[in-house]
Amino acid sequence: MRTEERGELAYIRWIRSRLAGGDRRVTIGPGDDMAEVLVPLLDKGQDRARVLIGTDTILDGVHFDLGRDRLEDVGWKAVAVNLSDVAAMAGEPLAAVGAVALPRSFGMAEAQRLFEGMSRCAEVYDTAWVGGDVTAWEHPLAVTVTVLAQAEHPVRRSGARPGQWIGVTGALGGSLLGKHLTFSPRVREARRLAEAVSLGAMMDLSDGLSSDVRHIGEESGCGAIIEGARIPIAEAARELAARDGRGPLDHALNDGEDFELLFTVDEADAERLAGLDVGVPVTVIGRTVESSRGILMVDEEGREQPLQRGGYEHWR
Amino acid sequence: MRTEERGELAYIRWIRSRLAGGDRRVTIGPGDDMAEVLVPLLDKGQDRARVLIGTDTILDGVHFDLGRDRLEDVGWKAVAVNLSDVAAMAGEPLAAVGAVALPRSFGMAEAQRLFEGMSRCAEVYDTAWVGGDVTAWEHPLAVTVTVLAQAEHPVRRSGARPGQWIGVTGALGGSLLGKHLTFSPRVREARRLAEAVSLGAMMDLSDGLSSDVRHIGEESGCGAIIEGARIPIAEAARELAARDGRGPLDHALNDGEDFELLFTVDEADAERLAGLDVGVPVTVIGRTVESSRGILMVDEEGREQPLQRGGYEHWR
Repeated sequence: MRTEERGELAYIRWIRSRLAGGDRRVTIGPGDDMAEVLVPLLDKGQDRARVLIGTDTILDGVHFDLGRDRLEDVGWKAVAVNLSDVAAMAGEPLAAVGAVALPRSFGMAEAQRLFEGMSRCAEVYDTAWVGGDVTAWEHPLAVTVTVLAQAEHPVRRSGARPGQWIGVTGALGGSLLGKHLTFSPRVREARRLAEAVSLGAMMDLSDGLSSDVRHIGEESGCGAIIEGARIPIAEAARELAARDGRGPLDHALNDGEDFELLFTVDEADAERLAGLDVGVPVTVIGRTVESSRGILMVDEEGREQPLQRGGYEHWR
Repeated sequence: MRTEERGELAYIRWIRSRLAGGDRRVTIGPGDDMAEVLVPLLDKGQDRARVLIGTDTILDGVHFDLGRDRLEDVGWKAVAVNLSDVAAMAGEPLAAVGAVALPRSFGMAEAQRLFEGMSRCAEVYDTAWVGGDVTAWEHPLAVTVTVLAQAEHPVRRSGARPGQWIGVTGALGGSLLGKHLTFSPRVREARRLAEAVSLGAMMDLSDGLSSDVRHIGEESGCGAIIEGARIPIAEAARELAARDGRGPLDHALNDGEDFELLFTVDEADAERLAGLDVGVPVTVIGRTVESSRGILMVDEEGREQPLQRGGYEHWR
């Protein structure tokens, strides 16, 4: 059991309780994949543009390992984790800034390789690189990227309702074998999804399905039943399972850093979903239920069991 | 002498050369205190809002020292250094996000004290706190804040022309004795300045006057003559000087983290500047000249000498 009085989830809950009053300029506050802020149109009276903002840090020894990983891939990941949040809102990226804390031992070539990765990812996803901050210290590399984006209809974590279908893109688990570094954020796929069906809630899978389905449940005020047999299991999850003796399903549920999309759609759209080509496989893995039922999984014998949360929490 | 092939300034120059092509959505790119991005007004044809974005990291052992400093003050500084960039553009803050890498040893109380400082600074400067990212690792605290702002007429570093007067707010040097942590970013003061006079260039003093005047010179393509006798020297600079044997002027020129404003105005406005109350003392310290003359200082004997750059570079 986790001590909920500590840990990042408890901290974020406390921060949200401190900000409960809201702010006239904020249309989406803390707790979603990105926040949304109103930007006045200067000299144009009451008109406002809406801009999404999200920020993520990746740390040596936690999110990557410079003893093994290429700096170009680390730079790619620093931007891609943020673009994965843009995807989660069904948004379109606009611009990015980066703040890097370099180990003092870095030479210029290493700093450049890091930036090459960041700028390549920004370029592939049509995101303008607009600046940042460079510092150095005697400790490991820390990279923070902040992304601006826009969505005509941002898809929230709170938009699920009981009786919807739950879907995921791609296949889950085993990302530690490489995908966690060099993944493709599902920006285009999310927008195609949002255009084709009526999405309830959406988020990106970063903590692991067993944790993230709970986030949607908590934000939306509903429960969920996941059918274990339907979860698409990545080849890498089977590979890891063969090594460590944990089951492939365990990996698919709990590894985290899949950076695929988890979403809900109305039942009426479920059929359309089946025939949809968004550029990556889409799988229905369960449905939302009343919140009183909690977060459940149907096991191989057809029994409903509470789904244990096994995802990763950095600080607990 | 500094090796210019390494170091953060060389790195930033290299990054800017890589981005020289520009982007249709970017009105102010890397190299200024903040960047400016166009945000389309959804469903409103060609209209665009303009939003300023800036990001800064502060690190334990570099920008603060948890062996000595209060976590509330560290949180304040993390936001205030960003608001100082908003001031530098004569902007108005809109919203902020934070990304914290906590030492795993932190308890909830420590994490909360950090946030109390961040949210207090945001509140005092009417900045909506809209979210962030929490991670933890086995290394010291790193805090990155990103701020969104707006300015009707953003004041650039590149706006100086030969023949202008150079001014600063406040008094310089010795910020290590405390001001570097608990300073008041000059947001309101900058806007009053921008309303009262026609500003050429402006930036905030973070690296130290001797470095920062050079940044304005480089961006604007002009030189500068600083009159040493006119530089307002902080009491803390005299205090430090009495301890370490360096002169007070040396501290005022080179200590960095003053977080005051450095700006240029047309000569016609210099008189108006003298009588102006922007809430903090404003002092004319020199004038801009043709770039061929370089960055000079008039010493106590009235001789013009090249001004040595002594400011702080984190990575060199």
